[in-house]
Amino acid sequence: MAINFGNFFDSVSKKSKLGDFQDLDHLDGVSISTTSANLYNSQRDDLVLFYFRDGAEYASVYTQSKIVSENIKWNLNLKNKKINALLINTRNANSFTGKKGYQGIKEIADELSACLTEKQKKDEEKPLKIKPNRIIFGCTGTIGEKFPTDKIIKNIPELVEKIKYTQNKYIWTKAALGIMTTDLIPKLAMEECKIGSTNVKIYGIAKGSGMIFPNMATTLGFIFTDANISSNVLQKLLKKNIDTTFNAISCDGDTSTNDMVSVFSTAKSKNLKIKNINDPRIKEFDLALHSTMLNLAKRVAADGEGASKFITVSINNAKSFDDARKVAFSIANSPLVKTAIAGEDCNFGRVIMALGKSGVNINLNKLILKFGDIKIIEKGQLSTSYNEIETKEYMKNEKIELYVEIGTGKKSFTAYTMDLTKKYIEINADYRT
Amino acid sequence: MAINFGNFFDSVSKKSKLGDFQDLDHLDGVSISTTSANLYNSQRDDLVLFYFRDGAEYASVYTQSKIVSENIKWNLNLKNKKINALLINTRNANSFTGKKGYQGIKEIADELSACLTEKQKKDEEKPLKIKPNRIIFGCTGTIGEKFPTDKIIKNIPELVEKIKYTQNKYIWTKAALGIMTTDLIPKLAMEECKIGSTNVKIYGIAKGSGMIFPNMATTLGFIFTDANISSNVLQKLLKKNIDTTFNAISCDGDTSTNDMVSVFSTAKSKNLKIKNINDPRIKEFDLALHSTMLNLAKRVAADGEGASKFITVSINNAKSFDDARKVAFSIANSPLVKTAIAGEDCNFGRVIMALGKSGVNINLNKLILKFGDIKIIEKGQLSTSYNEIETKEYMKNEKIELYVEIGTGKKSFTAYTMDLTKKYIEINADYRT
Repeated sequence: MAINFGNFFDSVSKKSKLGDFQDLDHLDGVSISTTSANLYNSQRDDLVLFYFRDGAEYASVYTQSKIVSENIKWNLNLKNKKINALLINTRNANSFTGKKGYQGIKEIADELSACLTEKQKKDEEKPLKIKPNRIIFGCTGTIGEKFPTDKIIKNIPELVEKIKYTQNKYIWTKAALGIMTTDLIPKLAMEECKIGSTNVKIYGIAKGSGMIFPNMATTLGFIFTDANISSNVLQKLLKKNIDTTFNAISCDGDTSTNDMVSVFSTAKSKNLKIKNINDPRIKEFDLALHSTMLNLAKRVAADGEGASKFITVSINNAKSFDDARKVAFSIANSPLVKTAIAGEDCNFGRVIMALGKSGVNINLNKLILKFGDIKIIEKGQLSTSYNEIETKEYMKNEKIELYVEIGTGKKSFTAYTMDLTKKYIEINADYRT
Repeated sequence: MAINFGNFFDSVSKKSKLGDFQDLDHLDGVSISTTSANLYNSQRDDLVLFYFRDGAEYASVYTQSKIVSENIKWNLNLKNKKINALLINTRNANSFTGKKGYQGIKEIADELSACLTEKQKKDEEKPLKIKPNRIIFGCTGTIGEKFPTDKIIKNIPELVEKIKYTQNKYIWTKAALGIMTTDLIPKLAMEECKIGSTNVKIYGIAKGSGMIFPNMATTLGFIFTDANISSNVLQKLLKKNIDTTFNAISCDGDTSTNDMVSVFSTAKSKNLKIKNINDPRIKEFDLALHSTMLNLAKRVAADGEGASKFITVSINNAKSFDDARKVAFSIANSPLVKTAIAGEDCNFGRVIMALGKSGVNINLNKLILKFGDIKIIEKGQLSTSYNEIETKEYMKNEKIELYVEIGTGKKSFTAYTMDLTKKYIEINADYRT
């Protein structure tokens, strides 16, 4: 192992703009295994397996791109609601790889199916046959390069061999590290809540970094719970919560062919199964799921490529959710706003520019703009209390909050993004070298 | 004068990625004057006056932003088809400056009106009264800062005094320099053509640099002709040609509150006046106008902030012009495509990503992608002739051409942009300091 976890754990908390993540431990019904298939030049884990020995119901949402990767095509073709494994590889997106890319997924699924079926025979009283169609895939990395099917297949036996049935914070962090591409910091989040009188856990990991825009640019998010919830309800919860979490973050306005956020329930907590979205017992879980997803999504934005600052853009008093969303992303995606913030420049004129270009009607007489608690614009005019020195001081913070009221209604939307720095260019101009 | 024109003319041709511009000389009916009102800390011209002693018919198109600058509001309020002056200032956009900003324009118009009326009395046989409503304004610079009305007014008498009735290449270049903000290179273009048997000239200057996106982000373009054409026809010609010229360029996807492209005809060439867009004599002029506008627009893109490369994105075989346009800008605005090109990386996967995220239907089986003459993708697959080494060599060029066929129809659109470099961040993070 190239990574010294002792040092690693020491350093992580210092790096994150959003504070430390909580340690994840055992979540019943989930097993994790990671390994290196040498997909990178340097040694690092690039294959991560989540294994559900007794199966898991699940739900997924995928990229809105008109071109989707081959693994997503595979996932979309599966009709069963219960699966036994999720395999993620990095370095290669398996996108625009055509029939050979799809065939690669099939061959890996075959190998993994065989190895897991063997493992079932060895470990379980009532062994299952883990068919290929009970395995889903996440891929992330370069688009349009030949998919390294053989390299991955060669490492499947070891990956399965390394499965342990008790998880701890190290293996969760290894998983979060193993799915990273240009991310600097692993992203983990957790919540605990009750369904009825039963305690349940929600654990999640995510990766992001570049190509991050609504509809989940190269974002992978995987959420696991021991709650007993039907795939149908999971799908509705996921759809309900995605707009204000993973679809509320933006790094550069680019969208990947590989985005995927999934939630898996192992049902080990033994709560009476929830089969209906209107079941009142779901409320607390719904909030905890939202909180986990938002926490992960924010961590993705905070670690956007080259980010030196984490930016919250909150749009309020809009006519519709859609209006608020458009304005929020017009600001959050504006290179000029983002470079000004990188330069710690209180150039609010660029926020006004971005407001104007959004195409959304704005009631200028009611326009309010605040940077943090500092009032910049009130009633559509420069605030009489505006103080450039104070604002300049505020711009030095690592977390910048832009608060806007556009005065056309009562709806709100908050977007999360980062500043645009030279580091972003450096990372992306030299990505493949 | 801070600028040594001898040296300047020597250096310009070397810097431009699009080759040298042709020298503009005398265009009958237009007078130019420039001066410094000390709007910058360093000494440079920041006021440029175009004076039409016998008037000019004109047409303008403006930004599509929901927030427009005060000078554009002034221009839109004018009802007369003929004007006598165009005054441009840099450093301050007069945007989000409210009633005081508008009042500033009015006061400057009053002063300029008085000075020009005096000048008419002195120089003309039949002196005109140059009313304030015969003056239009272009402003560019920082948004939301107090408009420096007094500084500008103080310099109006000198500006008028310096007017000369014969123009040469130096005064045109001084004008092109005087309207620049973060531009590095002045932008000039010219064409000559015939209307019937009469020779006419079309001269133009432009500025651009940041906030450049369709609907003419901080772009100012001013085109002058001695042809005799009604303002009504000018307006139609301008609208017809703007989509494939100034609205076909993109720098960073940001849109300014101040964009403005105008065309002025002094009628000095004495061709029989063209009053109808269907007049067959307009054809050659139409083409020459398009050519002038495209030349200026390309120069704006090539000198986009921090640009090291000029990029042409040509989308073909699309179902509609709109589809082609959407795909072209999805690529031309993608930070990941633009950073890859900055890094001379033939990362065509990012072009595919941008194709996918455009939301436009693509016939993958017919998809063609070429970098220059190098075939990358044919029939939706990596070309058998694709050679990474050859492509890497191509990426070293200063002009990069991306050619795409999306296989859904017969329409085309070409967008022009530049790469995204660290220099862009540098310029924009420190813009106001």
